Amino acid sequence: MKAWEIRDTFGLENLKLADRPEMQPGPGQVLVRVRAVSLNYRDLMVSKGWYNPKQKLPLVPCSDGAGEVVAIGEGVKSVKPGDRVMSCFFQRWQNGELSDVEARSTLGSPADGMLREFAVLEEFGVIPTPSFLTDVEASTLPCAALTAWQALVTLGKIKAGDTVLVQGTGGVSIFALQFAVKSGARVIATSSSDEKLQRAIELGASDGINYKTTPNWEKRVRELTGGIGVDHVVEVGGAGTLSKSVIAVRRSGTVSLIGVLSGPGDFNPLPILMNGTRVQGIFVGSRSMFADMNRAIELHKIHPVVSDVFAFDQSPDAFQLMERGGHFGKICITI
Amino acid sequence: MKAWEIRDTFGLENLKLADRPEMQPGPGQVLVRVRAVSLNYRDLMVSKGWYNPKQKLPLVPCSDGAGEVVAIGEGVKSVKPGDRVMSCFFQRWQNGELSDVEARSTLGSPADGMLREFAVLEEFGVIPTPSFLTDVEASTLPCAALTAWQALVTLGKIKAGDTVLVQGTGGVSIFALQFAVKSGARVIATSSSDEKLQRAIELGASDGINYKTTPNWEKRVRELTGGIGVDHVVEVGGAGTLSKSVIAVRRSGTVSLIGVLSGPGDFNPLPILMNGTRVQGIFVGSRSMFADMNRAIELHKIHPVVSDVFAFDQSPDAFQLMERGGHFGKICITI
Amino acid sequence: MKAWEIRDTFGLENLKLADRPEMQPGPGQVLVRVRAVSLNYRDLMVSKGWYNPKQKLPLVPCSDGAGEVVAIGEGVKSVKPGDRVMSCFFQRWQNGELSDVEARSTLGSPADGMLREFAVLEEFGVIPTPSFLTDVEASTLPCAALTAWQALVTLGKIKAGDTVLVQGTGGVSIFALQFAVKSGARVIATSSSDEKLQRAIELGASDGINYKTTPNWEKRVRELTGGIGVDHVVEVGGAGTLSKSVIAVRRSGTVSLIGVLSGPGDFNPLPILMNGTRVQGIFVGSRSMFADMNRAIELHKIHPVVSDVFAFDQSPDAFQLMERGGHFGKICITI
Amino acid sequence: MKAWEIRDTFGLENLKLADRPEMQPGPGQVLVRVRAVSLNYRDLMVSKGWYNPKQKLPLVPCSDGAGEVVAIGEGVKSVKPGDRVMSCFFQRWQNGELSDVEARSTLGSPADGMLREFAVLEEFGVIPTPSFLTDVEASTLPCAALTAWQALVTLGKIKAGDTVLVQGTGGVSIFALQFAVKSGARVIATSSSDEKLQRAIELGASDGINYKTTPNWEKRVRELTGGIGVDHVVEVGGAGTLSKSVIAVRRSGTVSLIGVLSGPGDFNPLPILMNGTRVQGIFVGSRSMFADMNRAIELHKIHPVVSDVFAFDQSPDAFQLMERGGHFGKICITI
Repeated sequence: MKAWEIRDTFGLENLKLADRPEMQPGPGQVLVRVRAVSLNYRDLMVSKGWYNPKQKLPLVPCSDGAGEVVAIGEGVKSVKPGDRVMSCFFQRWQNGELSDVEARSTLGSPADGMLREFAVLEEFGVIPTPSFLTDVEASTLPCAALTAWQALVTLGKIKAGDTVLVQGTGGVSIFALQFAVKSGARVIATSSSDEKLQRAIELGASDGINYKTTPNWEKRVRELTGGIGVDHVVEVGGAGTLSKSVIAVRRSGTVSLIGVLSGPGDFNPLPILMNGTRVQGIFVGSRSMFADMNRAIELHKIHPVVSDVFAFDQSPDAFQLMERGGHFGKICITI
Repeated sequence: MKAWEIRDTFGLENLKLADRPEMQPGPGQVLVRVRAVSLNYRDLMVSKGWYNPKQKLPLVPCSDGAGEVVAIGEGVKSVKPGDRVMSCFFQRWQNGELSDVEARSTLGSPADGMLREFAVLEEFGVIPTPSFLTDVEASTLPCAALTAWQALVTLGKIKAGDTVLVQGTGGVSIFALQFAVKSGARVIATSSSDEKLQRAIELGASDGINYKTTPNWEKRVRELTGGIGVDHVVEVGGAGTLSKSVIAVRRSGTVSLIGVLSGPGDFNPLPILMNGTRVQGIFVGSRSMFADMNRAIELHKIHPVVSDVFAFDQSPDAFQLMERGGHFGKICITI
Repeated sequence: MKAWEIRDTFGLENLKLADRPEMQPGPGQVLVRVRAVSLNYRDLMVSKGWYNPKQKLPLVPCSDGAGEVVAIGEGVKSVKPGDRVMSCFFQRWQNGELSDVEARSTLGSPADGMLREFAVLEEFGVIPTPSFLTDVEASTLPCAALTAWQALVTLGKIKAGDTVLVQGTGGVSIFALQFAVKSGARVIATSSSDEKLQRAIELGASDGINYKTTPNWEKRVRELTGGIGVDHVVEVGGAGTLSKSVIAVRRSGTVSLIGVLSGPGDFNPLPILMNGTRVQGIFVGSRSMFADMNRAIELHKIHPVVSDVFAFDQSPDAFQLMERGGHFGKICITI
Repeated sequence: MKAWEIRDTFGLENLKLADRPEMQPGPGQVLVRVRAVSLNYRDLMVSKGWYNPKQKLPLVPCSDGAGEVVAIGEGVKSVKPGDRVMSCFFQRWQNGELSDVEARSTLGSPADGMLREFAVLEEFGVIPTPSFLTDVEASTLPCAALTAWQALVTLGKIKAGDTVLVQGTGGVSIFALQFAVKSGARVIATSSSDEKLQRAIELGASDGINYKTTPNWEKRVRELTGGIGVDHVVEVGGAGTLSKSVIAVRRSGTVSLIGVLSGPGDFNPLPILMNGTRVQGIFVGSRSMFADMNRAIELHKIHPVVSDVFAFDQSPDAFQLMERGGHFGKICITI
């Protein structure tokens, strides 16, 4: 079978198409024919060696995929060949709090990921695909959607009438927008592009702020909320953005820290203290949260926003688009 | 000024129109010109002496009203004459958990209620009326809507994809339906009338169960939820209904006990234990919850469902309709 | 190997000592040499056919045991031969909320229980024994202790300064007393025996109420708490006791429903509503809660209170004592 | 009456003893004869102009005091002359979440504080003193103790068996140590002094780490917790300490940010994300939390640790000690 792998040393230039032997599922495992994969910024970081420099190579990248079960191992009861499934980011985090053992069970690093024709996954490391979604759409859920869900719903306990700030128009932010709207919340979106803000508004955002033309966007957020600030910020930047987010959030509000695109930097923790802010780190989510999310997606027929779809043999182009940025929603690959 | 009062002894036949002296607000109080009142089942119970036999008479009934501030007492800063406001069921429950002192500050018993032309209320015993609502609509919020809100949102922490069971089509149940739908939940409604079930479905319920033709409605609820049961039951009956509700709810689910229309009876607590059910008593809500609810109502422009509107001098007819039943939503009186 | 089993039909008179074939652990399983078992009221109910009339016989009763791993199946990594372990009541409930599949994985019904020399259990259906406990002591933890822990700590979120009411001096109640005291709470205990109340006070209870001489014990509870009521009630009775417990608990307090010794009966749900009470069903607990509990037991060197210890061949006597009552703490059997 | 005030410009050298006119309580207010005051680091910052440069002068510093009610204003019912009371840091935060209006009601800035013979406070801006405490001991509770309580108990939901890290031996840290121990938790303390660590151990800490001799104390914390990390960190430093605290805390654990002694600095938010950490800002607490805390203090007869007591006319010396550091527990002044 064919698989893309980072070979020898890190770097997108070392992403190579390989032939790998066929696999069979062991006890408690399933063999999945992968039909679609989606990219996350983490996949780019992994490939460049920024995520875990000790990662062993070769490595098949990409945590997120969707496809069809083609064989099951001994003792597997919850799925059968023919079932459409998605991969779970953590192969072993079923529910409750994440343990150290479970934390090491992530696809796309340290374990081989989904950018290949077939993958052997744990029985409870896959989850049924909502029937109305295509495989491409489904492939976007395991990491980006679930991160947004855990942030706003599981830990954020979002409620009707709340206001949410989403930053930019990457995968997690757009899912956060969609989940917030379906939860009855108001959404304020930021972007460097008025065109993208317009699309966010079409998806249900009430307001858009162009952070290029309004660099003090945290003040604009307070204005838009009657001076109070938003209930939740879905924070995807780094120390710099975080410094603004803790101003944009209301007293006793929550900043969900889900990405660190802009890295470390100078930070003053004082506003966190003075405003009783909760800064909550979010690391994807458990299979149980995934099931809750799928129930909402199914009920509301929420379609993920897919920005671009690449063919399997053009996979490196997908990584390059991720690196360049400019997409709106998710970048996918069909297999 | 004119006021309806229960005079001498309990009973609807003793509900009389009286002339009462004009009032002035004391320090920290406001004088409200009442424009509309809504009825709750509690108002009927109070008037009949079933609610609190020790209640002193005469008593102006009705906890819920809306109108306009016409005068403010010394030190009042948060409202001014001309402001449209609603009464708070508890004149003194601002936020946090209900204290004993706050619990005794309820309108319509023990204190005089809103069925009169003017009422003196505490400064923080009124709350601004959402601008898009009529006074009649606004008069329905203080008790019925807030009870539904506390049950599902504040304590129930409802989330998108959840399933809620609402019983009947009285005020609280219809508000619960509306709030659940706006929170992204699925709603199953019960009623003895197919016509009312149809109206519930028009308001966003996914399914209706006629409990006359389906007396084992708890089993039907389980069928409709794939054998799992609902996440929340908004329970308005008594021991008998409760026995079915604890079957209809899923493992680890919540039954919000908000009414006891059918009184005490035989009850087996075993299913509560075996299913890890939470039976949560709900007693209206605080002013802080009211503010949260208004924010959601304003954002989504939720219009309360008003069943019937009576003129002030026909107030006894309103009570008789409440006693007879058959309404869908709230019974109101204009003043 | 030897095993006690309920044979042919229910009833303590059908509890017979049997010879069963040796067993070997399958993949993901462990073989445990059982050294001690403790009894719960549930074991009595199971044996008499009151718990689940459809239970297949023969059945080895008793959910709770402690001993030593003597062999491990394929793939088992978390324990090894020689490790001292306790059984988990639910063989498959690791953490999060209890699922239907997990709910059927209980020992002592429907699956064979621990009253035998050897038992094959799931790898994650055992948990390490705190090193300072004897096997007899450890055998008391899986059901009774964990029920008390989930009630007060996991769901009850007990805090220093709270007041807890424990009813009687059975296994769960004494564990609740011990955990409450270590959590910094005040404990009020009820019993029909002044001598037992004295022992409860020696274990750290601040007050004892003899419910024979003080049948309106719920009023006495309110007096002892300045008229406010307790924060938590650990309710082990049935509808009758529950009616008093909802009076004894403070406004917005919690009644943890953990036993239904006295069965169904007449019940008035009104106080639950008026006081915003939470009645929370408790069904033992997950392995993750068990681990949390063990950490506290280890830190504070909490010794379970063992009432009586019987030899393996006198097991029926242990069941008869459970039926007769009169014990203080747990009834155990050594093997 | 006599009062210390920061006069003309900020700086300890401008802390002057003044004669101020007698005061009378207005409606809803009480007049308190102040008997003791305790210092917080905030009082030092306020006096130097670091806390709020726009603060108007003259200002009586110090948020925390204890004394006796000597007169009550119109309408006051909950206290009477002769009652021993403590000041509430927020004069208007009763319960629930802190509002903007309530947030501006703090003593010692912007309003005059407690370092004077008499103070007029709001009726619900005082709270009864636990009877077994001296006024000096009681004066330490309003800010430092309540901050520790909110961090660990109200928001931290500490439970028996948890492990808590407290940094240094200032007021908040010692209260956190005491509350954690009474809640059944294990405590690890850091300090630059072995002697102080010894005293922390005498107060119930299980382990002490000298951060001078062990600069990588975060690694030592992980070792002491079997590689897992602590459940709670009570963080009193700034960006630099925070960077270590997010390593010392376990996956999904909580860092309560209660002080920023060392100010802004370079910070990498990545570990927060990867470990699902919650960084929770803590700003003292509400009157309702204060009542809960007092209940625990009363039940366990917890005596605050008083480091040094100064006479009223030596108040500047107290501030200088706070600036110098080296104390263990609270610095107090008697009046």
